[in-house]
Amino acid sequence: MRPEEVKDLLTAMEAGTTSIEDALALLQRVPVEDLGFARVDTHRELRQGFAEAIYAEGKTADQVVAIATRVAEHSAAPVLATRVPERTAAALLAAFPDARHHELARLVVVRPTGDPEQQLGTVAVVSAGTSDLAVAEEAAVTAEALGAAVERVTDVGVAGVHRVLAVQDQLRAADVVVVVAGMDGALPSLIGGMVEAPVVAVPTSVGYGAAFDGLAALLTMLNSCAAGVAVVNIDNGFGGAMFALRALRLRR
Amino acid sequence: MRPEEVKDLLTAMEAGTTSIEDALALLQRVPVEDLGFARVDTHRELRQGFAEAIYAEGKTADQVVAIATRVAEHSAAPVLATRVPERTAAALLAAFPDARHHELARLVVVRPTGDPEQQLGTVAVVSAGTSDLAVAEEAAVTAEALGAAVERVTDVGVAGVHRVLAVQDQLRAADVVVVVAGMDGALPSLIGGMVEAPVVAVPTSVGYGAAFDGLAALLTMLNSCAAGVAVVNIDNGFGGAMFALRALRLRR
Amino acid sequence: MRPEEVKDLLTAMEAGTTSIEDALALLQRVPVEDLGFARVDTHRELRQGFAEAIYAEGKTADQVVAIATRVAEHSAAPVLATRVPERTAAALLAAFPDARHHELARLVVVRPTGDPEQQLGTVAVVSAGTSDLAVAEEAAVTAEALGAAVERVTDVGVAGVHRVLAVQDQLRAADVVVVVAGMDGALPSLIGGMVEAPVVAVPTSVGYGAAFDGLAALLTMLNSCAAGVAVVNIDNGFGGAMFALRALRLRR
Amino acid sequence: MRPEEVKDLLTAMEAGTTSIEDALALLQRVPVEDLGFARVDTHRELRQGFAEAIYAEGKTADQVVAIATRVAEHSAAPVLATRVPERTAAALLAAFPDARHHELARLVVVRPTGDPEQQLGTVAVVSAGTSDLAVAEEAAVTAEALGAAVERVTDVGVAGVHRVLAVQDQLRAADVVVVVAGMDGALPSLIGGMVEAPVVAVPTSVGYGAAFDGLAALLTMLNSCAAGVAVVNIDNGFGGAMFALRALRLRR
Amino acid sequence: MRPEEVKDLLTAMEAGTTSIEDALALLQRVPVEDLGFARVDTHRELRQGFAEAIYAEGKTADQVVAIATRVAEHSAAPVLATRVPERTAAALLAAFPDARHHELARLVVVRPTGDPEQQLGTVAVVSAGTSDLAVAEEAAVTAEALGAAVERVTDVGVAGVHRVLAVQDQLRAADVVVVVAGMDGALPSLIGGMVEAPVVAVPTSVGYGAAFDGLAALLTMLNSCAAGVAVVNIDNGFGGAMFALRALRLRR
Amino acid sequence: MRPEEVKDLLTAMEAGTTSIEDALALLQRVPVEDLGFARVDTHRELRQGFAEAIYAEGKTADQVVAIATRVAEHSAAPVLATRVPERTAAALLAAFPDARHHELARLVVVRPTGDPEQQLGTVAVVSAGTSDLAVAEEAAVTAEALGAAVERVTDVGVAGVHRVLAVQDQLRAADVVVVVAGMDGALPSLIGGMVEAPVVAVPTSVGYGAAFDGLAALLTMLNSCAAGVAVVNIDNGFGGAMFALRALRLRR
Amino acid sequence: MRPEEVKDLLTAMEAGTTSIEDALALLQRVPVEDLGFARVDTHRELRQGFAEAIYAEGKTADQVVAIATRVAEHSAAPVLATRVPERTAAALLAAFPDARHHELARLVVVRPTGDPEQQLGTVAVVSAGTSDLAVAEEAAVTAEALGAAVERVTDVGVAGVHRVLAVQDQLRAADVVVVVAGMDGALPSLIGGMVEAPVVAVPTSVGYGAAFDGLAALLTMLNSCAAGVAVVNIDNGFGGAMFALRALRLRR
Amino acid sequence: MRPEEVKDLLTAMEAGTTSIEDALALLQRVPVEDLGFARVDTHRELRQGFAEAIYAEGKTADQVVAIATRVAEHSAAPVLATRVPERTAAALLAAFPDARHHELARLVVVRPTGDPEQQLGTVAVVSAGTSDLAVAEEAAVTAEALGAAVERVTDVGVAGVHRVLAVQDQLRAADVVVVVAGMDGALPSLIGGMVEAPVVAVPTSVGYGAAFDGLAALLTMLNSCAAGVAVVNIDNGFGGAMFALRALRLRR
Repeated sequence: MRPEEVKDLLTAMEAGTTSIEDALALLQRVPVEDLGFARVDTHRELRQGFAEAIYAEGKTADQVVAIATRVAEHSAAPVLATRVPERTAAALLAAFPDARHHELARLVVVRPTGDPEQQLGTVAVVSAGTSDLAVAEEAAVTAEALGAAVERVTDVGVAGVHRVLAVQDQLRAADVVVVVAGMDGALPSLIGGMVEAPVVAVPTSVGYGAAFDGLAALLTMLNSCAAGVAVVNIDNGFGGAMFALRALRLRR
Repeated sequence: MRPEEVKDLLTAMEAGTTSIEDALALLQRVPVEDLGFARVDTHRELRQGFAEAIYAEGKTADQVVAIATRVAEHSAAPVLATRVPERTAAALLAAFPDARHHELARLVVVRPTGDPEQQLGTVAVVSAGTSDLAVAEEAAVTAEALGAAVERVTDVGVAGVHRVLAVQDQLRAADVVVVVAGMDGALPSLIGGMVEAPVVAVPTSVGYGAAFDGLAALLTMLNSCAAGVAVVNIDNGFGGAMFALRALRLRR
Repeated sequence: MRPEEVKDLLTAMEAGTTSIEDALALLQRVPVEDLGFARVDTHRELRQGFAEAIYAEGKTADQVVAIATRVAEHSAAPVLATRVPERTAAALLAAFPDARHHELARLVVVRPTGDPEQQLGTVAVVSAGTSDLAVAEEAAVTAEALGAAVERVTDVGVAGVHRVLAVQDQLRAADVVVVVAGMDGALPSLIGGMVEAPVVAVPTSVGYGAAFDGLAALLTMLNSCAAGVAVVNIDNGFGGAMFALRALRLRR
Repeated sequence: MRPEEVKDLLTAMEAGTTSIEDALALLQRVPVEDLGFARVDTHRELRQGFAEAIYAEGKTADQVVAIATRVAEHSAAPVLATRVPERTAAALLAAFPDARHHELARLVVVRPTGDPEQQLGTVAVVSAGTSDLAVAEEAAVTAEALGAAVERVTDVGVAGVHRVLAVQDQLRAADVVVVVAGMDGALPSLIGGMVEAPVVAVPTSVGYGAAFDGLAALLTMLNSCAAGVAVVNIDNGFGGAMFALRALRLRR
Repeated sequence: MRPEEVKDLLTAMEAGTTSIEDALALLQRVPVEDLGFARVDTHRELRQGFAEAIYAEGKTADQVVAIATRVAEHSAAPVLATRVPERTAAALLAAFPDARHHELARLVVVRPTGDPEQQLGTVAVVSAGTSDLAVAEEAAVTAEALGAAVERVTDVGVAGVHRVLAVQDQLRAADVVVVVAGMDGALPSLIGGMVEAPVVAVPTSVGYGAAFDGLAALLTMLNSCAAGVAVVNIDNGFGGAMFALRALRLRR
Repeated sequence: MRPEEVKDLLTAMEAGTTSIEDALALLQRVPVEDLGFARVDTHRELRQGFAEAIYAEGKTADQVVAIATRVAEHSAAPVLATRVPERTAAALLAAFPDARHHELARLVVVRPTGDPEQQLGTVAVVSAGTSDLAVAEEAAVTAEALGAAVERVTDVGVAGVHRVLAVQDQLRAADVVVVVAGMDGALPSLIGGMVEAPVVAVPTSVGYGAAFDGLAALLTMLNSCAAGVAVVNIDNGFGGAMFALRALRLRR
Repeated sequence: MRPEEVKDLLTAMEAGTTSIEDALALLQRVPVEDLGFARVDTHRELRQGFAEAIYAEGKTADQVVAIATRVAEHSAAPVLATRVPERTAAALLAAFPDARHHELARLVVVRPTGDPEQQLGTVAVVSAGTSDLAVAEEAAVTAEALGAAVERVTDVGVAGVHRVLAVQDQLRAADVVVVVAGMDGALPSLIGGMVEAPVVAVPTSVGYGAAFDGLAALLTMLNSCAAGVAVVNIDNGFGGAMFALRALRLRR
Repeated sequence: MRPEEVKDLLTAMEAGTTSIEDALALLQRVPVEDLGFARVDTHRELRQGFAEAIYAEGKTADQVVAIATRVAEHSAAPVLATRVPERTAAALLAAFPDARHHELARLVVVRPTGDPEQQLGTVAVVSAGTSDLAVAEEAAVTAEALGAAVERVTDVGVAGVHRVLAVQDQLRAADVVVVVAGMDGALPSLIGGMVEAPVVAVPTSVGYGAAFDGLAALLTMLNSCAAGVAVVNIDNGFGGAMFALRALRLRR
């Protein structure tokens, strides 16, 4: 409930068109709809500028479709479902004919928009190795779906530093850089020292035993000796993109 | 060495004013000065927009002064020394009469500027508890020294949620929010859901035993259920501010 | 063996109706029945007020049925089997026609009672996300089966704090609050600061990589900055409910 | 702000004695007082039944005294300061002549009450070894200060099980049992199987190397095979007592 | 090669019946037979009193049969294969008609002996819960196969301490006690304080999330407050039994 | 209370020389004396064959002297205090003129006995490096004080395997071998394969960073590929010796 | 781009045969070919002496074949694919008729060479147990494919030290020793003390619970008390061999 | 004892100049001298090419001097003492007038040699930051003392990649590269991809909280995506140098 709404309510009450009891009840109501198994946050678009995204893992296909339906009713923005199992993707495509399923990224975008005028700016999504591509795609598709232009830069791991040097201009041209890396997770340190833009590091669970499912890359990134690199959860390409989008809005 | 410089060099060589050998030597030279114990990156300001900051822990007072002197010669920007022991702070103040020592933050700013026209935007530095203040001050002083306006919001831990609700407007008005929290590290999740701006989370080592020197808060923040929260190292207020500053430059 | 029984025994011996040898043997007997693969604690109801619950994981269906049968013979209370595999559930339903299988919670209640007069008080079982529902249901069904009224509050994660604020009255009305959360595990801190009742936190294994199968949520909860929040094992909804039931008996 | 206050406010506005602007301002005001370095939650007593406790570690003596002074002004209840360094304790005793310093527990109670009519019930505070006494005292003093009767049971570790058996009646007579143990942390499992009351386990950092500063005891307690044992942070006797006090209020 | 053999060899050389070259070659030969994929230690029985046991996990059925065959040729003692997959067990039973397969323990004993005169003494194998039975059986069958009498004591977890008290005499009568427990792993501490015999603790991987696959029980046991409890690897019933057997030989 | 005592009591009651009430009281009495801060287990010698040892860390000098005094009154055996700080050692030596302080081992033995006829057998205490000597001495002095002959074998780390081979006969002659090692902790595996006796491994906290204060050595020892090696806590020489002593009693 | 090439380029430009613009473009070009999903480093052979190896896990069969094809076009050296799934191996064999698939090692060598004159020296690949063979084979095949002679020494774990002693001469004859071990990981310490050559330790994930998937062996090896043992990632036989090959080139 | 010595011994025995008993005794003697608190390995120079180095931490000054004296008597090579406390350094300088104390490296070299003809080759010792210098110096001084030429390359962290590129030729000219880095530990990956030589990575304990005392850098290095990088213990510059020296001997 926004401040103006509170003021309107109080004015109505003063004018006698709303009773005290009704006003109290309204003040306690919040813009959340209870589906039984989930509370849909129908005002998130107003509050944060993006519609709610649905984390599909651990939910049934029916639950995901029901939540997506309700979110779509309250918002004109694209609706994202992440970590979508095959079965759930099929259900969403059936329910929303214009939905798009990005298989490598395991994402479904309900009601995608492609309007170039909506572009918030450019995100470079950089991946260290071919095995990191699924996470990088989750980041790239999320950023594109919510209004950013995306530059994909693939397989530029630090062990072949000339590969990174070769794409310096591309990286420097981006407004935000999302760096996706497993194994030693060293790439964000290198890029953090090359560019002026915010660098968001996404560790992946790719690697031999002592990678400990992404822990090694995570720690590397947190300890980056390039000042001003921040980190999101392991394999969380979606989170990396969401952070980039928040930053891009500073350009408006 | 920037592309234009390469082009100039090649032109000079073609014109005969520079020999091949000299050109080759110049191409291999990089803007780094070797002090024996440290290589000062005198071109960082050009490359990244900020002068080099000096991590003083584990360096002698003489080393820190020498590095600061050299950096200051090559840059007009303020020079920061972080994690400064008492002895080193005294040496810096002696060497640079206009330097300022921020004791709680353990920071020294050499050649501080206070020009309001330089303001890049506003950073809210939020701390969950009074015990987190030292880390929060490291973030706040860094951001101010490098050209941002800072809103300090203190002691608004999640266990008294009304304290956070009471400062919502202040938080929403900021361009970037840096949230500093120890113990359960829950505050960034809460704030991440309230504001539209990028939220940078800084875990601190404050807490009882199972805080494990900040590990608990770090993991909480990485797992934030608010999409678009990114995390820096434990007690790294400086890093949090540097990330915020990178993001603020998107406003230009 | 209760004190009065010891006294009766000694009286009988003094009266000559029991020999010294028999008394000694009786003093050494304990109320445990050995099934070969398990020792059924047939006096637990007397000692702790609830019949024994059977942890079905790692036991064969036959073993679980045999233990349940023996427990049911010695107690009039409901008998719970937790973490019940499909096959074992079927065997229990065959052996106990009135048993009820709660699939989401993976619980079977043998000889359920629904007597409203038995109500010990009210437990609010709060879950942060839809993916935490299975664990929350284990808590809710356990509490109901053993005599508590349960209020289920679903999907009120801290990233949308207004969702929690909207259910404050429901939470404040409960005698005990069980909070089930994965990912950042921040919800118990928030609720712990809102209500007067004991808050039992149940971390779940839901989340991206650095959730480390519930470790992140567990540590968050142990470090809760709200005083008076206690924690049980990861995914242990049963344990959370048992603790709540112990507390509810203080109301008698 | 309690619901009745909201209603009063609205009534006043309807009656014309309060303007819309004033009402709106009041609705946004929260019962938190900003001291600059801390926000004192002056309404906590109303909301949770106990005054705010002050975690003194990492705060200056002056800060602690200032917070205590403000809390004491808004509440008639005792005010606790925990983890109090020597210097801070002296400052509190100087500022509050009736304050009591419990050295072993590192606690200061400002304005202690000893009224037997206030007793909420009985808490047994059990410690496994003499080395656990400081943490146990933190629990015991907290519980006593806030209105509970406390039974101290000392040095009854599980390696001499007859020591525990000898105090069974004492344990069974308590309304809540707080068990404090380091090393193997096995005592809560044993006691959890003996008593009907809620058992709150407090791990301590006492022990040889592989105790890992309390981690071993913490894990033991979380895995207690006695159903209905809950755990608080390592060395957090205060937290254990606060949880017990919440539970005791169920008896009213 | 035993000292007497060296002496014999030197005597033969001195007597001229063995050349220097032959003696040197013999001195360098060791009692190990190379099968290409494994080196069978055919003299282990002489050196350690037991034939070699074969860890079958990660070996093919053919490899296990080949090793077992070679070991059996050089020793009259029983040969054990541990962690035997179904396929390998079948192959061993086919190759050694008198072999016995203990399914729960996943052990095959080739050429088992049942001679009561061989008894080295009595091992009590105690398990805390029914779910720990597989590991306990691995210990029990190993001890029996190599000459010990075994007392199995099942399901006497510490949460029902009277179950342990009821079997005190059985435990005190044993020469060595092997205690198998998962979850909180508290049982060895309790038994360690009850009996005079060596107590070998075997943690199991049984338990909810924070059991961390046996880590919790392992740490508990290492921190046992009963002096003189030693620990083997998680789920390593075989190792626990082997240690017990080494201790039993002190009785000879 | 031993079974015969129970029988005597019952006989007395039957004979009328003891009343029922007195018998009941006696049956509930246990051989534990409450000093307020500690419960002295005055019957431990009867139950386990050794007097209680006092862990002095975290206790005041006065507490340790008081406990030692009481234990010494009820037992004719030597009394050990372990991890004794300098101040406490002085207090013990003042209180018990015949006490001996072993400084390297940080042990005080009150009322030491040196009677060769008491020898239980021989313990070899082997240390891998000179830096492990303090822990090894704690083991050696404990074993000697409680009746074992001790062979000290020093500095025979696995990196110079011939050093171990050179002492094989000494090791094989021992009844039990206690192996103390830090860093890689590899020595118990080597010795475990050489000797027939039980091998008790004691990890120490000696080593470079990735030794993680003994964790590396601890894990190595738990994973020993020599069957029948058991492990005690890090730096716990006392525990290693106590286990050896339990095993030695099998020789009687 | 090598220095001579830069000089040639500059000479050409000075001579007027290359324009400034072309030179600049060439200076910025790097020897990396972008396949869309991967950047093939076609100059690695020049830079490091070996062609690029392809980590096949997480890549599709088509991707691996495409990369292998491009690498093979630019290099005359053998091309390795590691961690090759069955499907990908079949695809490679179809695409490269002379490729060889080493199943145990999960390696495919495209265009293998067997020229004895290429031998760089001898690598001993030592494995502690039969279960470590797959990792050892990965090391052995890699070393052979890239020009080293390999001595395989199998199943010489430290628990039977005479097995190691028996192969001392073989180990001392090698130029580099790669030691592969799981469980306690003690073998490199032993061998490190025996030989003069560099010892590369490869931990494997073989072992019971507290092996923690190779962590125990990894830590043991990092803490090796033999000076000059270095370690690679868990199960990374390929990495161990690559390191050995780098060292062997010192012999040229 | 070398094979030829064994042959000589047997020949002497055959010739009658040595008795069987004497030969047996000699065969069992090994080249280790027992000082009581340490066993000096006087033949290590023969076996491994370097004299024994003394780890001084945890040893008294007297012990270190005694060991150094004995080692120096049996070897003409330099003797190293590492991790030398001030007091021990003074004692060594007093005992060995020509000894040299390297304070930053905490090393003492007894009987240093500076003969240029002894040079084994060149080791580049690279450090990422000024704070890593102490560990880098331990490596550099060790390598120099034992016969290598050392190139020190300081402060070339990956965040300023041009600093590394600027020293490429220096790095490529080295026979072995030792890379010392804390924080993110990314430098070895970068250098591993640049040079053909073996790269030995030494993690340091330098860094903010989530560096976890070097664990982060250690994991990064183990996961290096450059094939053929091997790792030694945290802060173990000595170990890194010893490995490099082993490798250098391959050049002979």
